Amino acid sequence: MGRSPTVTCVHTSATSAELLDHLRTALGQDGVITDPDVLPGYQRDMMPLAPYGTPLAVVLPRSTEQVQAVVRACARHRVPIVPRGAGSGLSGAANAVDGCVVLVTTRMNAIVEVDPDNRLAVVEPGVVNLDLRDAVEKHGLFYPPDPSSYDWCTIGGNLSTNAGGLCCVKYGVTTDSVLGMRVVLADGEVLDTGRRTVKGVAGYDLTKLFVGSEGTLGVITRATLALRPLPQAPGTLVAAFGSTGAAGAAVARVVREGLVPSLMEIMDATSIQAVEAHLKTELGAGRGSAALLLCQSDSGGEAARRELAAIERICADAGATLAHTTFDAAEGAMLLTARRAVLTALETYGAWMTDDVCVPRTKITELIAGCARISDEVGLRVAVVGHAGDGNMHPTIVYDPTSTDEFDRATRAFNDILELGLALGGTITGEHGVGKIKRDWLAREIGPVGLRAHRAIKAALDPDNLFNPGSMFTMD
Amino acid sequence: MGRSPTVTCVHTSATSAELLDHLRTALGQDGVITDPDVLPGYQRDMMPLAPYGTPLAVVLPRSTEQVQAVVRACARHRVPIVPRGAGSGLSGAANAVDGCVVLVTTRMNAIVEVDPDNRLAVVEPGVVNLDLRDAVEKHGLFYPPDPSSYDWCTIGGNLSTNAGGLCCVKYGVTTDSVLGMRVVLADGEVLDTGRRTVKGVAGYDLTKLFVGSEGTLGVITRATLALRPLPQAPGTLVAAFGSTGAAGAAVARVVREGLVPSLMEIMDATSIQAVEAHLKTELGAGRGSAALLLCQSDSGGEAARRELAAIERICADAGATLAHTTFDAAEGAMLLTARRAVLTALETYGAWMTDDVCVPRTKITELIAGCARISDEVGLRVAVVGHAGDGNMHPTIVYDPTSTDEFDRATRAFNDILELGLALGGTITGEHGVGKIKRDWLAREIGPVGLRAHRAIKAALDPDNLFNPGSMFTMD
Repeated sequence: MGRSPTVTCVHTSATSAELLDHLRTALGQDGVITDPDVLPGYQRDMMPLAPYGTPLAVVLPRSTEQVQAVVRACARHRVPIVPRGAGSGLSGAANAVDGCVVLVTTRMNAIVEVDPDNRLAVVEPGVVNLDLRDAVEKHGLFYPPDPSSYDWCTIGGNLSTNAGGLCCVKYGVTTDSVLGMRVVLADGEVLDTGRRTVKGVAGYDLTKLFVGSEGTLGVITRATLALRPLPQAPGTLVAAFGSTGAAGAAVARVVREGLVPSLMEIMDATSIQAVEAHLKTELGAGRGSAALLLCQSDSGGEAARRELAAIERICADAGATLAHTTFDAAEGAMLLTARRAVLTALETYGAWMTDDVCVPRTKITELIAGCARISDEVGLRVAVVGHAGDGNMHPTIVYDPTSTDEFDRATRAFNDILELGLALGGTITGEHGVGKIKRDWLAREIGPVGLRAHRAIKAALDPDNLFNPGSMFTMD
Repeated sequence: MGRSPTVTCVHTSATSAELLDHLRTALGQDGVITDPDVLPGYQRDMMPLAPYGTPLAVVLPRSTEQVQAVVRACARHRVPIVPRGAGSGLSGAANAVDGCVVLVTTRMNAIVEVDPDNRLAVVEPGVVNLDLRDAVEKHGLFYPPDPSSYDWCTIGGNLSTNAGGLCCVKYGVTTDSVLGMRVVLADGEVLDTGRRTVKGVAGYDLTKLFVGSEGTLGVITRATLALRPLPQAPGTLVAAFGSTGAAGAAVARVVREGLVPSLMEIMDATSIQAVEAHLKTELGAGRGSAALLLCQSDSGGEAARRELAAIERICADAGATLAHTTFDAAEGAMLLTARRAVLTALETYGAWMTDDVCVPRTKITELIAGCARISDEVGLRVAVVGHAGDGNMHPTIVYDPTSTDEFDRATRAFNDILELGLALGGTITGEHGVGKIKRDWLAREIGPVGLRAHRAIKAALDPDNLFNPGSMFTMD
C-alpha cells in the first residue's frame, strides 16, 4: 500500500553513474548512500496513505556549499531532488519519487547563533526542534512552534511545512517565528531572504513564501528565527463533558469572551479511552465522558489564575461534568503527556492514519459529530483529537494494516473528513501540509486561478521542476 | 522637485480615447476622472522625494467586477495601472506614472462582515483603518495595525505596504493580522488566497506574498482580517534621559529582560523640542533632555503595574533623569498625542522628509548618534523618532521646501541614513516600503539573486508589467 510513485525520472544508468560520481566528489563517500538496504529508511515519512518511490541515492550534505553542489549536479542531469528532514511528516511531502536524489538535512544541525539581546537564533535546517528549545531556554527565551514530533522533527521540516503544534492558539505557527532564510535555488544560487530585524518590508516577503512550500521551491540551508521571552510555568485546567456539543460550546465561548489560553486541546471519547488504557491511568474524565478539554495559561501568577478561573466558569456553564485546575507542574505535565500520547495509544487497536483539517472555531462540534457519522459509515474507529483553540482538528482513523479492505475504508474516511472540513468553511490542512496525499484536495480548495498562480510561481523559481516534483500540485 | 516620472507609457490619443470609453462604460461617468484640475490630487502620496507622473485617468471602481473591467481594459491597451488607497504612503509607491490609470479603492469601503465568534472581519480595501478599529471595538475586538495615518489611511494601502505602527512591538505588523485576500490579477481573473480559519497551510502562502507587494502583483479588492480581544486600557510610562545612549541602553535591557510592552516609542531632543513648542506644553522631559521613552502596558491590573514598574526600574538604572507612570487615561492619551504630533510639529521649521530604517534593537543608540552626525554634515535638522521596541526608527529631515540646495542636502541625509541602517545590520525600510524612492537601495539590500527572484515572481504573475511598473524594482 502506498507504493505508487507519482513521478518517474527517466535516465540511463550511464548518466546515473556520472551523477553519483559528481555527488561523491562533492560530499565524500559517506555523504552519498546508494545501499539498497539503507535507502528504504529515507523513502517515506509517517503517512501510510502517501505514495513513495525508490531514490537513486540519498545525500547528506554538511553545508550550503555542498547543497549547492548537489543541486547543480542534479540540475545538470535533470534528476529531481526531494528535500527531507527527519521524516516525521504526515503528508508524504518528503517521500521519494523513483530515481530521485533524497537530500537529507540532518547533518546540517548547528545552532549557529543565539542572540538574546535581539531575541533571535540562527540555525541550520537539521537542528531538532527540541534541541533548539533547550538551547534558547538557557537564555530565558522560547521558540514557540511545538509540533507533536518536537522531540525528533527538524527545524527545516518545520519551516517547509509551516508546522504548528499545541502553542499556536497563543503564539502562532512557524511562519510567525521566522525572520529570514538562506535557500539554495534551482540554479544552485544562494538566496538570502528577510532580515535580522523585528520589522522589515524591503521587497516581497520571500521568507513567508518559502515557509510552507514543502521543498518545492528550493532547499533551506539556514534560518533566522525570532524568539520570545520564556513564558511563566503554566497552570493547567482539565474539564470533562457529557457531550462533544457541550465541549464545543465551551470553546466557542472562550473565544468569544476574548480569552487567550496558551494551550487549548480537545480529546473525544475514543481518544480518552485509548489513552487511559495505554497509560493505565485515569484522566479524571469519569465514565461516559464524551470529551475532555485541556487548557493552559502561561500568563503567570494572578493573571493565570484569573484566566483559568474564567475558563473553568465557562466550562461549568457549558455543562462540564468535571473541571479541575492545577498549578502543580507534575500534574500539568501528566495531563499534557496524556494528550500527546493519543496517537501512540491508538496503536493498541491497529495502525492509524491521522487527518488534519482546520475549521472555524464555531464549527468544532459539527466536525466532531460528522467524524462520528463517518466512523459509523466506514465501520472503523475514528478518534478526534486536536487544537480546539484554533479549530485545527486531527481526526485519526484506526485500521488493520494487514487488511486491504480496512485500508480502503480508512482512506474513504480520510477523504470524507476533508469533504466535511471544506463544507464547514475550513481548510484541507491546518498544519500537516498537502504533500503527495492532498494534491487533488488542494486543487479543489484553491480553485483553477489559485492553481495557475501556484504553477506560475513554481515555474518562475524552478523552471525545470527539479524540487519535489509532483508534491503539493503537478505542473500540468 | 520629484517631477521625474519613471515609466512613460506610449500610446496614441486614439487608443486612449477608446480605453476611456471602455472605462466609462464599465464604471459610469463619475467613476472615471480626467479633469486636469482634479488629477493632481491623485498623482502622488506624502513623500516629497518620490517622482510622479501625470495619469491618463483616475478610476474609482465600486466592486471587484469593476476592478476586473478596469484591469482587462488596461491590459488590452497595455496601459499601466497604479493602485492607490488614500495616498498617505511615504515611498511614492502609489505615485502615478505618465499615461497610467490610477485605480483608487476609496469607494470600495464596506465592512462586509464582523464575526466576533471567530474573531475576524471581512472588509473592502477602501475602509479607513480607524473606521475598522471603531467597528470591531463595539464587539470587544481589536485590529492592531495602527500606522501614524490611521485616521485616514485605508486597509488596502496598509495591506499593500504591510503597514506597522505603534502596536507592532507586541502585536506585529499587518501581515500578522491577515487570513486571506481577494485579488484581481493581471489577466482580470479573481484570485482568492488564504482562508477564514486561524491556521491553514494549503499551498503557498500567497496571502503573505501579496501583503507588502505595493500594488505590483494585483489589485486587492477584499481582505479577511484576524482580530484580537480588545486589550485593557493601558498604563503609560514616560522616562527622560540626559543622553540617547542611556535611553538606548534602557530599550536593550527591556528586550533582554523579556518584557513586552504594548508600545515603546523614542523621541530625541529635536523631536521633544518641536512637540513642546507646537503643543505649547511640557512633556516633563526637563531642560536638556536628550531623549524621551514612552511605554505602555495593556496587560491590565496588576500585570500592567508589574510590567511598567519593571520598565521604570530599568530606566532608572540606565540613568533616567525622570520616570513617571500613570494609569490616568487622559494623561496617557496626551503623551501619545505628543508622540504622534512629531511630524506636524516639525512643520514649524520647514518641510519634512521622513526616513524609515529598522535596525537590531541593540543598535538604536548607534543609529541616533549617526543621525546627529549626518545632521551636522548636511547642516539640516534631523529629528529622530521611532518605534524603539522594534528598532524601527524614523529619522526625519527638515528642510526649506523653496530651496533646491536644502532639498538636495535633505536627500543626501536621507540616503546617508539608509547607508547607516544597512551598516548596522538593519533594513532600508521597516514599514513604509520601497516604492519609487528606494529601488536602488532594495537592489542593494537583497542582492542580485534576490532581485532575480523578485523579477521572476513579478513576471510570473504580471507578465506584461501592468501593475505599478517601476515601483519597488524595475524589470531590467
